[in-house]
Amino acid sequence: MPKIVDHETRREEIAEALWRVVRRDGIRAASVRTIAAEAGWSAGAVRYYFPDQDGLLNFAMELVTRRVTERIDALEVKGSVTTIALRYLEEVLPLDADRRAEFDVWLAFIAQARAETGVSTLRQHVDKVHDGLRELCDSLLRALDQAGVLKAGLDLRREVERLHALIDGLALHGAIQPDRTGPARIRQLLRHHIETLLA
Amino acid sequence: MPKIVDHETRREEIAEALWRVVRRDGIRAASVRTIAAEAGWSAGAVRYYFPDQDGLLNFAMELVTRRVTERIDALEVKGSVTTIALRYLEEVLPLDADRRAEFDVWLAFIAQARAETGVSTLRQHVDKVHDGLRELCDSLLRALDQAGVLKAGLDLRREVERLHALIDGLALHGAIQPDRTGPARIRQLLRHHIETLLA
Repeated sequence: MPKIVDHETRREEIAEALWRVVRRDGIRAASVRTIAAEAGWSAGAVRYYFPDQDGLLNFAMELVTRRVTERIDALEVKGSVTTIALRYLEEVLPLDADRRAEFDVWLAFIAQARAETGVSTLRQHVDKVHDGLRELCDSLLRALDQAGVLKAGLDLRREVERLHALIDGLALHGAIQPDRTGPARIRQLLRHHIETLLA
Repeated sequence: MPKIVDHETRREEIAEALWRVVRRDGIRAASVRTIAAEAGWSAGAVRYYFPDQDGLLNFAMELVTRRVTERIDALEVKGSVTTIALRYLEEVLPLDADRRAEFDVWLAFIAQARAETGVSTLRQHVDKVHDGLRELCDSLLRALDQAGVLKAGLDLRREVERLHALIDGLALHGAIQPDRTGPARIRQLLRHHIETLLA
């Protein structure tokens, strides 16, 4: 295995240790020291791969983005355009343990980015992920539109924003009260929402 | 002024210092020490009013809840039932500086509560606030239903959950990208959503 791959694997191991710390103890507990302890490494070794904490946080966020993108690219869905659209959206919703962890980390990062003033790399990252999800909503609604299944006269831009907000709201509710807003309920509500847009 | 009121006023002052710290530096920066510095007090004085940090966080959350409730109770809105419903919902959305601060604190608390395992008072508090907003959505849709303006055959429980998720999603988007999802846009999207429910 070439050294560059080792380096990347080590960085991913550290990012995963960061996720475990953030999920278990909150983002305020995530420091080079606690992450090193979680990974079973020395703080110095962690600093070799990530000289500063912001770099580490950003890498962990990039990893979320990359994994979501990989899952979406790997999708091969058959069925109606609605079924396909819903299947894509499920990849960004916290419907299983992995995706819930991704959402928890995302939530902690949003909260932290909100607290930072000015232009921070953390904030730019939050923007990028946020824009990415809106673009996914946009592509899916455009696909439904081109398939001719949408109601006539819909304001597509408005519907993209409404769908995007609904998705993030459902994800948030799934995180706050997983018993009430579980995966099955999130799927039902999302399917219902898409159905209200169909002719 | 009776001593009990002084005590409460002091606690509110400390909670407000906590809000400023959380908004500016993130919840991981909120400690008895930083909050005392922000309030211009000694750490010992802060500990006199709040022996532990969880008590302080909970009080700050209670204060958000109380202020939102007071604003809602004080509302005297005239107009159509839809206008009235929208006006109520605006009180829970981050449409001005005060309400944005409340939402930022709420967001930081959700993220922190998510990271805590088991039953914590912070988590119970998040549940209570979350349930409170769902109940508000429920009351408003029931009022529209009783006024006879809703579409026939709506599944009210489902619509309550969808409205509730949309509100939290819009609030989140307003926090992430205030330029794109500003107060005017949030109002438009919310009005549009309510209109899709009307006969």
